[in-house]
Amino acid sequence: MRILVSNDDGYLAPGIRALADGLAEIAEVIVVAPDRDRSGASNSLTLDAPLRATLGENGFYRVEGTPTDCVHLGITGLLEEEPDMVVSGVNGGANLGDDVIYSGTVAAAMEGRFLGLPAIAVSLTSAEPGHFDTAAWVARRLVTRLMEDPLPADTILNVNVPNLPRSQITGFEATRLGHRHRAEPVIKGADPRGRPIYWVGPAGESQDAGPGTDFHAIAQGAVSITPIQVDLTRYEALDKVAGWLRRIPNP
Amino acid sequence: MRILVSNDDGYLAPGIRALADGLAEIAEVIVVAPDRDRSGASNSLTLDAPLRATLGENGFYRVEGTPTDCVHLGITGLLEEEPDMVVSGVNGGANLGDDVIYSGTVAAAMEGRFLGLPAIAVSLTSAEPGHFDTAAWVARRLVTRLMEDPLPADTILNVNVPNLPRSQITGFEATRLGHRHRAEPVIKGADPRGRPIYWVGPAGESQDAGPGTDFHAIAQGAVSITPIQVDLTRYEALDKVAGWLRRIPNP
Amino acid sequence: MRILVSNDDGYLAPGIRALADGLAEIAEVIVVAPDRDRSGASNSLTLDAPLRATLGENGFYRVEGTPTDCVHLGITGLLEEEPDMVVSGVNGGANLGDDVIYSGTVAAAMEGRFLGLPAIAVSLTSAEPGHFDTAAWVARRLVTRLMEDPLPADTILNVNVPNLPRSQITGFEATRLGHRHRAEPVIKGADPRGRPIYWVGPAGESQDAGPGTDFHAIAQGAVSITPIQVDLTRYEALDKVAGWLRRIPNP
Amino acid sequence: MRILVSNDDGYLAPGIRALADGLAEIAEVIVVAPDRDRSGASNSLTLDAPLRATLGENGFYRVEGTPTDCVHLGITGLLEEEPDMVVSGVNGGANLGDDVIYSGTVAAAMEGRFLGLPAIAVSLTSAEPGHFDTAAWVARRLVTRLMEDPLPADTILNVNVPNLPRSQITGFEATRLGHRHRAEPVIKGADPRGRPIYWVGPAGESQDAGPGTDFHAIAQGAVSITPIQVDLTRYEALDKVAGWLRRIPNP
Repeated sequence: MRILVSNDDGYLAPGIRALADGLAEIAEVIVVAPDRDRSGASNSLTLDAPLRATLGENGFYRVEGTPTDCVHLGITGLLEEEPDMVVSGVNGGANLGDDVIYSGTVAAAMEGRFLGLPAIAVSLTSAEPGHFDTAAWVARRLVTRLMEDPLPADTILNVNVPNLPRSQITGFEATRLGHRHRAEPVIKGADPRGRPIYWVGPAGESQDAGPGTDFHAIAQGAVSITPIQVDLTRYEALDKVAGWLRRIPNP
Repeated sequence: MRILVSNDDGYLAPGIRALADGLAEIAEVIVVAPDRDRSGASNSLTLDAPLRATLGENGFYRVEGTPTDCVHLGITGLLEEEPDMVVSGVNGGANLGDDVIYSGTVAAAMEGRFLGLPAIAVSLTSAEPGHFDTAAWVARRLVTRLMEDPLPADTILNVNVPNLPRSQITGFEATRLGHRHRAEPVIKGADPRGRPIYWVGPAGESQDAGPGTDFHAIAQGAVSITPIQVDLTRYEALDKVAGWLRRIPNP
Repeated sequence: MRILVSNDDGYLAPGIRALADGLAEIAEVIVVAPDRDRSGASNSLTLDAPLRATLGENGFYRVEGTPTDCVHLGITGLLEEEPDMVVSGVNGGANLGDDVIYSGTVAAAMEGRFLGLPAIAVSLTSAEPGHFDTAAWVARRLVTRLMEDPLPADTILNVNVPNLPRSQITGFEATRLGHRHRAEPVIKGADPRGRPIYWVGPAGESQDAGPGTDFHAIAQGAVSITPIQVDLTRYEALDKVAGWLRRIPNP
Repeated sequence: MRILVSNDDGYLAPGIRALADGLAEIAEVIVVAPDRDRSGASNSLTLDAPLRATLGENGFYRVEGTPTDCVHLGITGLLEEEPDMVVSGVNGGANLGDDVIYSGTVAAAMEGRFLGLPAIAVSLTSAEPGHFDTAAWVARRLVTRLMEDPLPADTILNVNVPNLPRSQITGFEATRLGHRHRAEPVIKGADPRGRPIYWVGPAGESQDAGPGTDFHAIAQGAVSITPIQVDLTRYEALDKVAGWLRRIPNP
């Protein structure tokens, strides 16, 4: 079992070191990760400039690129042998609810899936995360389970781990993504030269966070595991849209 | 009706000019768009630096940021009055099948949806697009239809328009996203100083492109209209994952 | 006479338009300029990524690169015929005293000189510059003078123009660069997520600004013209350093 | 003696580690360096975005910014106590002749000088540098010499060290900057999508490289030490330009 590890916090982040060390106990691990923090990169892919990869002192490849670039490069050309799985993280901070669409951690897993591999994204849910060892242990358990009993190849898992000692984790729960209230407005200010600037404000409070959601599992001290899809078609709306379109006169 | 227009090709691209002009016939149009080409930006959102917006000579706001930044800024603070709808595009090039996950054009529409507005993404399907007027006309028809008969607020439409004169468009079709074969490998080369570089290679050929898909509609000369979702939960896998997890011994 | 025009405020800045229009009365003008504001870029040159040049709607080439990149690309490969001179500007804001070392406007002229061409950098000295026509007229006068009576090829001129109507300009003065007091400290703050940030503070007040300096000429309403060198050797210190080194025991 | 160390190869480069270790034997050393390779950054200073500094695992501050940003931030606000001197390097590659104007290594030293401190830039002259220990030893000797016998405060030293074992260094030589022939043209190519790209080509061959120049000292196996100035006025041309201007009719 050869596992490609990436993240969006950069190749020097404590979370990726913990993940790589944790998985090295059960598999061969290769790390290809951004050279710096790329949080919020989503699935962005670099098409207009070439990528470079450098083998760092810590044995990790660092790439001047996004998480998606790293996984794409790792699977389709950088490495001599193709990996069997992609694990992304451990992100320092939650990837819950609507936020997953912005996440570079989840995007790295999605890119593994697009290229045909099973993939897991792992995040530690705290603004000041400390228990990376708990998250690494969770990742090892899930990979071990996948090795004995694979899920369908098109299933990505978005895993969030409470920032707790392992002994305080209450269980593993399959969840759906919750939803947040609308984001707070941008924060307007001025730079020292008097020109207006705008900072993106905080995410909204959780709105749909009841039982069954990822928010709820975390609040209960459980590991939240959400199956994620990469086909964005809203199938249940197809018929309605087809009917709606019929009222447009043909060109 | 006040429409916020954005794109990922940059505020000077011919497609956004055509779209803004086309929609100005039926609504008030405000353009907030990236200051340069941001194709492939996906849903990336700038959290670690402030944004700036400048009103350009052409009456469009340009932002040093991503498409998502533009829509977020436009709705939550830059504009005095909040828009009623977001229309993104016209992208110079298709956004079909698996590629939508990377698209800044689609991401701009998604961000509108996250902030509570109906949203449409419009692309012209050619590497050398010319018939932006056709795409602008399609956008105007869809917006007009939405004004008389709104869709549920959580429905984003991903619209692809064949690069043809309006008279050759064969119809409007509700579609699902098709799928591509795996992407081609990265292309390895060297810069003039002899250091290795890697270019992301071409997308794979279309694999699932039969009747009902967006690829198929375009091939028939029809406008492809795919309802898109922003909740990435793979609901149909929830039970299976729950069962699968039960076999992990509790912590 | 074929003149390559560039700047550091970007190809859409009002100053470069005024300069190109002004010089077009006496020479063939080709504009190759950054696609966006690159103030403060100094002489930075892009070695680790390829450059791209796009011919914009306004007839100017825009480059995703620095002012130095633009001039380097314009002279050594982009244009079919090599230009005879480089004129950079009109910068919106002064380039006086110690600040010239940071200036992309001056750097663009330096790059022209490195590649064998006479070169002029033109700036309008106001934080809210308006009289670009005055600066364009000054540029035209200097270029006309150079055409009838060239200066030695290794002479770059750094020109600062008071932000005044042409009729209020009191003359042309050859000046040396003045000096500023030390810069103000960085301004410490926090981003909305509570993390510390630092903004570079204002430049220091002028310290050496008496008669003969560029600061003084501008204060008198005169155009300041400083010959600039690109050989950074401090010749007058060579003997002293040689003596000083003699006291280091040989390896 | 408190020394601020920076560079342009990034805070993880082997040269800065060798320099910091070497100087730590004789002084207190604080490292503030770019978070990644910023070669070619020249004196560029970041005015339009805030800077951030992070204390890395190796005890070095890393900044998302240029070498000039690092020194500016280090001296004017990041550090509790102001340093007494700036030493920049050891750069992996030469900074000789006309190239110093592009160098971030030399710019870091210049910024120290602008802020009132003595400053040295140290480079190892090989495209595949190995003898960083030789360069660190040279830096230590020069700093020791400065501590016992300071040079005038406005003297920056640009030091280039042959890539040789210490025992093969033939001496220390005070030099002037040599000159190169004009740079090679840009190298035109195409990206995988068929769009034209241009790479900046190699620097020109050395043209003025005789005795007394930095090129010559290096070729003889000696350490080259060039005093550098930051006042770019070309004093010897002032009279000629004044006369030349007199022939321009007053406004």
